[in-house]
Amino acid sequence: MAPAFAKDEYDERLYRVRQSMRDHNLDALIIGDPSNINWLTGYDAWSFYTPQMMLVGLDKGPFWMGRQMDAGAARFTTYLTSDQIIAYPEELVQRVDTHPVIFLADQISALGVGRGAIGYESDVYYLSPRALSELQKGLPKAKWVDADLLVNWVRLVKSKAEIAVMREAAQIAEIAMQTAWDGVRPGVRQCDLMADVVAAQIRGTKQFGGDQPALHPLILAGEAASTAHPMWNDSILEDGQTVAFELGGCRKRYNVGLARTVHLGTPSTQLKDTAKAVEEGMAAVMEALHADAVAGNVHAAWQAVLDRYGLEKKSRIGYSIGAGYAPDWGEHTLSFRPNETVLVPKNAVVHIILGMWMDGWGMELSETLHVTETGCTKMTDFPQHVHLV
Amino acid sequence: MAPAFAKDEYDERLYRVRQSMRDHNLDALIIGDPSNINWLTGYDAWSFYTPQMMLVGLDKGPFWMGRQMDAGAARFTTYLTSDQIIAYPEELVQRVDTHPVIFLADQISALGVGRGAIGYESDVYYLSPRALSELQKGLPKAKWVDADLLVNWVRLVKSKAEIAVMREAAQIAEIAMQTAWDGVRPGVRQCDLMADVVAAQIRGTKQFGGDQPALHPLILAGEAASTAHPMWNDSILEDGQTVAFELGGCRKRYNVGLARTVHLGTPSTQLKDTAKAVEEGMAAVMEALHADAVAGNVHAAWQAVLDRYGLEKKSRIGYSIGAGYAPDWGEHTLSFRPNETVLVPKNAVVHIILGMWMDGWGMELSETLHVTETGCTKMTDFPQHVHLV
Repeated sequence: MAPAFAKDEYDERLYRVRQSMRDHNLDALIIGDPSNINWLTGYDAWSFYTPQMMLVGLDKGPFWMGRQMDAGAARFTTYLTSDQIIAYPEELVQRVDTHPVIFLADQISALGVGRGAIGYESDVYYLSPRALSELQKGLPKAKWVDADLLVNWVRLVKSKAEIAVMREAAQIAEIAMQTAWDGVRPGVRQCDLMADVVAAQIRGTKQFGGDQPALHPLILAGEAASTAHPMWNDSILEDGQTVAFELGGCRKRYNVGLARTVHLGTPSTQLKDTAKAVEEGMAAVMEALHADAVAGNVHAAWQAVLDRYGLEKKSRIGYSIGAGYAPDWGEHTLSFRPNETVLVPKNAVVHIILGMWMDGWGMELSETLHVTETGCTKMTDFPQHVHLV
Repeated sequence: MAPAFAKDEYDERLYRVRQSMRDHNLDALIIGDPSNINWLTGYDAWSFYTPQMMLVGLDKGPFWMGRQMDAGAARFTTYLTSDQIIAYPEELVQRVDTHPVIFLADQISALGVGRGAIGYESDVYYLSPRALSELQKGLPKAKWVDADLLVNWVRLVKSKAEIAVMREAAQIAEIAMQTAWDGVRPGVRQCDLMADVVAAQIRGTKQFGGDQPALHPLILAGEAASTAHPMWNDSILEDGQTVAFELGGCRKRYNVGLARTVHLGTPSTQLKDTAKAVEEGMAAVMEALHADAVAGNVHAAWQAVLDRYGLEKKSRIGYSIGAGYAPDWGEHTLSFRPNETVLVPKNAVVHIILGMWMDGWGMELSETLHVTETGCTKMTDFPQHVHLV
């Protein structure tokens, strides 16, 4: 086992994070999001269900901090040296009378990082209110600064090596969607179809295997398709259902999203009209998307098409995508919706997902797009039309 | 689509939660853990990657609170009435200038639940420090009480209906492990083997399908087996490797864990001795486990066997298991380790996992056990020996 990228790549990422820390007047940063920890150092294990964090000083660290039984994974999957791997004893896990972060706060203090301005991620899945509170109690001389998304914004611009890995993930996404198209038909249980789809995601190609995507693979069939994130079940697909798939491929934790729609039987005029609008909308978005485009203007290109068709969509149409663990592959930074003033940088990768969750049915079309100087490039190559079965 | 259990079952659960709320002098409870939300109402969707919570008053609610595009799932998967489903507008998702919980705090206030003692889950994955802080700012007249694990402790005792669903999950776990045993051999890529295993978990049986288990399926092969939670990769399994699998089955979000070990080639004396100790240890644990057993005493039965073999294991040997979403199927309540004074209740279901992560290799053996009046019953029926290939 080895880290996913060369050491130079991680050095560069660390350099950019420290620059942002300086810009925000931080002496240290506590990272709770396992995607950010993975991105910064390569650390990869399903260990974030007990407290885990990363400490980055301006000239110390990064330090991985987690459970004793997972410290080995830090040795296998990162370039960190043993003094950068700090484990709390097993006996501290899930007790009523103490908390692992009390131990970790002492370790941070011993590293001499307990006094300055410490940034922390305030709105991530895996740094709990209790954990933050124990940090703050244990390091009372620090000045605590909300630094949510600091790392995520740095991640927005992808390196060549990241784009290459995402192109592999995109190949897996194509295979997964082809598996869905090949297997979907009336009489098939949702779970049987999704078993084949997920197996395809994990098997990958002959040259490289796949990971489990951070977003749970979604099948939206019939009535459930009026909502965005239903779970599959063991009911049988029926003639007359419109079935949307939001799948993806994942390689070395990098996710590429891909959504498509299938109709079982004869499509209604409403479905055909909506599909036409959505395909035109995707073309308009791709036409409007390039380096330094304003995110709100990209959305406006979509809205103009929708308006022409008299359709409505209240939710954003896309976001930045990249490395991620469950439950989300979005990076929580860039969103495409009205009035967003952020400029889309060159080498961003965004998942544009045109989900139309209608009354009693729904459809989706998405593309993961690599933003270039002059435009954007589709990561996957898969037909956009509604597939009729 | 329908809720996983009958309405009576959820009414009973709500009754028990409210009793515990009264015992803790709470007027209301904010639940952030999606497993707890699912357990209490049946709500099931991959929607917890944006802020989502449940509000339970002593005589109001429960209220599901989440994103507009997911409100439909609350109608499909619960018995909640439309006034118990409170959605925040899409435009609030992942913005720099506001937060969905600011909106939700206003809603809670409008429900007249903003003044008493409000309990909250302080150490869960999906109620962030920012979300809690926005609740507290928005409801300044409430008295905020850390009520972490309140619902989880109520969940510890399983109903007949829950045991029945877990028996279905157990059947799926057996099929998944059999798939692993059938497919594991030198020359196979980890990802190809795990593709088949995960497909088996999702396909389930002819009678019922499976869900994705909350814990990522784990394969611990060779050197990586010295750590507890490595991710699969596309390397090839090799002759001489000891390979541990921590798999499981999941049905209607209920998880049953199952770990077994395979050796490719001729096992070492060390492996044979460790396996013998672990099998004896499991027998000793099962002998010691019954309703009203002290958790620490159950661990002591294991420790006595380990001592006899001169082996050491620093981590706990088990925990309560049940409904769960990624990243964990453990309920974070009962742990089996030295000096735990908690009495194991009748109809608890626990995952006893004897993981020996040694120097450069590792092995695991686990059973999910239903605690009865007089003893305990294995949920799965699968050979315990180290399988030789």
